[in-house]
Amino acid sequence: MVNEPASSNDPAACDSPAIAAAVNPQRLANDLATLAMIGAREDGGVARLALDDNDTRARLWLVEQASELGAQASVDAMGNVFLDLPGSDPELAPVVTGSHLDSQPAGGKYDGALGVLAGLEALRALKAAGFTPRHPLSLVSWTNEEGARFSPGTSGSAVFCHVRSLEETRLIQDSEGVTMGHALDTCLAEMDAANVPRRSLATPMYAFIELHIEQGPILEREGASVGVVEGIQGVSWFEVTVTGTANHAGTTPRAHRRDAFEGACAVATALREAARDSEDRVRFTIGKFDVSPGSVNTIPDRVTFSIDLRHPEAATLKALEATFNDITQHTWAGCRVTLAALSRIEPVAFPDALTAQIDAAAGELGITAPRLVSGAFHDAIHLANHCPTAMLFVPCHHGLSHHPDEHTELDDAVVGTQLLAASLARLSR
Amino acid sequence: MVNEPASSNDPAACDSPAIAAAVNPQRLANDLATLAMIGAREDGGVARLALDDNDTRARLWLVEQASELGAQASVDAMGNVFLDLPGSDPELAPVVTGSHLDSQPAGGKYDGALGVLAGLEALRALKAAGFTPRHPLSLVSWTNEEGARFSPGTSGSAVFCHVRSLEETRLIQDSEGVTMGHALDTCLAEMDAANVPRRSLATPMYAFIELHIEQGPILEREGASVGVVEGIQGVSWFEVTVTGTANHAGTTPRAHRRDAFEGACAVATALREAARDSEDRVRFTIGKFDVSPGSVNTIPDRVTFSIDLRHPEAATLKALEATFNDITQHTWAGCRVTLAALSRIEPVAFPDALTAQIDAAAGELGITAPRLVSGAFHDAIHLANHCPTAMLFVPCHHGLSHHPDEHTELDDAVVGTQLLAASLARLSR
Repeated sequence: MVNEPASSNDPAACDSPAIAAAVNPQRLANDLATLAMIGAREDGGVARLALDDNDTRARLWLVEQASELGAQASVDAMGNVFLDLPGSDPELAPVVTGSHLDSQPAGGKYDGALGVLAGLEALRALKAAGFTPRHPLSLVSWTNEEGARFSPGTSGSAVFCHVRSLEETRLIQDSEGVTMGHALDTCLAEMDAANVPRRSLATPMYAFIELHIEQGPILEREGASVGVVEGIQGVSWFEVTVTGTANHAGTTPRAHRRDAFEGACAVATALREAARDSEDRVRFTIGKFDVSPGSVNTIPDRVTFSIDLRHPEAATLKALEATFNDITQHTWAGCRVTLAALSRIEPVAFPDALTAQIDAAAGELGITAPRLVSGAFHDAIHLANHCPTAMLFVPCHHGLSHHPDEHTELDDAVVGTQLLAASLARLSR
Repeated sequence: MVNEPASSNDPAACDSPAIAAAVNPQRLANDLATLAMIGAREDGGVARLALDDNDTRARLWLVEQASELGAQASVDAMGNVFLDLPGSDPELAPVVTGSHLDSQPAGGKYDGALGVLAGLEALRALKAAGFTPRHPLSLVSWTNEEGARFSPGTSGSAVFCHVRSLEETRLIQDSEGVTMGHALDTCLAEMDAANVPRRSLATPMYAFIELHIEQGPILEREGASVGVVEGIQGVSWFEVTVTGTANHAGTTPRAHRRDAFEGACAVATALREAARDSEDRVRFTIGKFDVSPGSVNTIPDRVTFSIDLRHPEAATLKALEATFNDITQHTWAGCRVTLAALSRIEPVAFPDALTAQIDAAAGELGITAPRLVSGAFHDAIHLANHCPTAMLFVPCHHGLSHHPDEHTELDDAVVGTQLLAASLARLSR
């Protein structure tokens, strides 16, 4: 565990300000621009779908950066790419950073990519600052985080961490019927051709830190360049079905109606009110709402809608689920309502011992890094089951992501990279 | 006008009970069964789409009934089929009844068909009772009332009454790209082959009475076999657009959201409340409601929904439209709202002089025939601009229509036909 670094009695070995000063903003900016050209869209965005040609080219570009860094590139059976730097004690497990290179079909330049490039720049900075780690250091790019081509996402980290099996994951098909196994084999053949050696899945790690754009508005509104993520919210997905009676809009008096839309509107409002907390920590979203038969002059007989409910605490999610069950027990506007729980992912809390190390590094650098909770999933959710895990968030403009206009200021990316580099040094020293 | 029939000083010429007694329930039942076989669906319903082979076969079947009735069949350029019985005064305009033979793709046996067959049986009863009309009597079947194949519907009556032009109507295409003009020509060629003579559009009428199933629950709930329709509700269609900001469901705090679904739900509820009247005469329906982008974990940025608003009085429709405009002036859940008026059809009130004649006939027959307003459109809405027009409604089971299970009890159909026959006699004597 990461409670006490073994060499904390030797502070000179980890000069955080010197490491931060060795982060090269221009080099990071160049890498961001170079990578954004691989799968560039005309609208300024990026289309680098998991295991497509662009995604494979991005991997090969990353592998090419290994020699200048003095690192060894390798790839595992899930296509996860690693760049490994040795530590002074070869018996120790590595301290790992990284994120993903794949994007949404109309994605931006930062989601995932910034985490990989910040990790690469952090390792370069550690080297340039003359820092000698005791633990090995690794940079990783996980395969198919987005789930846009092959659903669900976070495939590379899930298989690496034994959350899902390689076999079932290889069977997943994209919309054209191509299996992930086939796409993986094509990609791995290219890696073979580039002489990238294979490595095992599930190799031990001492710690994992992922830097990512926030994909939310909090840091931008607080004017912070970086934030320390305490954990990842839990998510419950529900499907609510409201059943009424279809009838002619012109001929049916109000008193004789069982209008599924009216019922759905009323129960949706009641559910939203029940989820309203004064702290504004509950995330309640109705994103899909399908009205049947969907004709202007027919009273709807059926509405089906989704609920995406998130909270950092499992107990709150459970209590809200019970409240939702109560609310949907009775009829609304004369319509029967059913609530089905579709999926549930428990919240993850990152270990205090690890976030405390990052806080300490921020303190040494004079960086204000507020704590926040991740509202989105990341590969880190699986890594948290494999080793002590933490995340850093950098702000993104207007909280926008999965969009060509996704943007993070270079200054913020640099501060995030500096804190990442100093944190990796503290953990690996 | 129909205020005072010319021969009202000769009551013996119009013996309502004898005419009612001449309505033959078995003959009406046989006709309903025969017609339901033309385009019969396996589920018991009827698919007789305007101007398709079944619809043309139904027309030819109707034409075949002319000779036994002693009537002259003819067809106009819109495919409207007439069966004409002479009156004693050839200078007078005819009293006309009828409805339509086309159905929805999954329609029932009664919508439209019952009005044509009740009219046919009423003319037979008048003849069987020895009644000699002064005015000619006509039965009509209007083309494409439903609008299911060629939209909009009520084509035959609209062109007959100069509400739409024949030329524009012939250009309307079905989903296969077949124009209504082409389908009409095919149908008319079959009518030519059956030696059905052509007649003019827009021929004068003394009065028009259409019998139809109610397509609503009122008569069934009141236990009435027939109702006298006072008019057809006006209809306003609106489209409401609610614009918010799309964002990640997991990362965006409530305070930073502009959730178009939340706004749409709130404004829809406010609009519905504004339309709520204690008399239950306003018909307010939201039947289409489209949420964009429609993803479980994305806060919607846009909702578009329809409003179908109906009322028998133009002033009420206008006042509600003004209220709706006020409600949509301000933001809802931080979202901008716009209200667009898509279409407006003014209410039609049938002339008191005509409905009073039907009331009088019902009185003579001892039939309880409550007044009601039509919530649906009918060919009568166009005829009301052409001549004094009225409608009779008979109940349908559960108010259900446009469905294979659509059903009217034979007893009710017979009572409706008796009242129709007696009313035609009073008007034509």
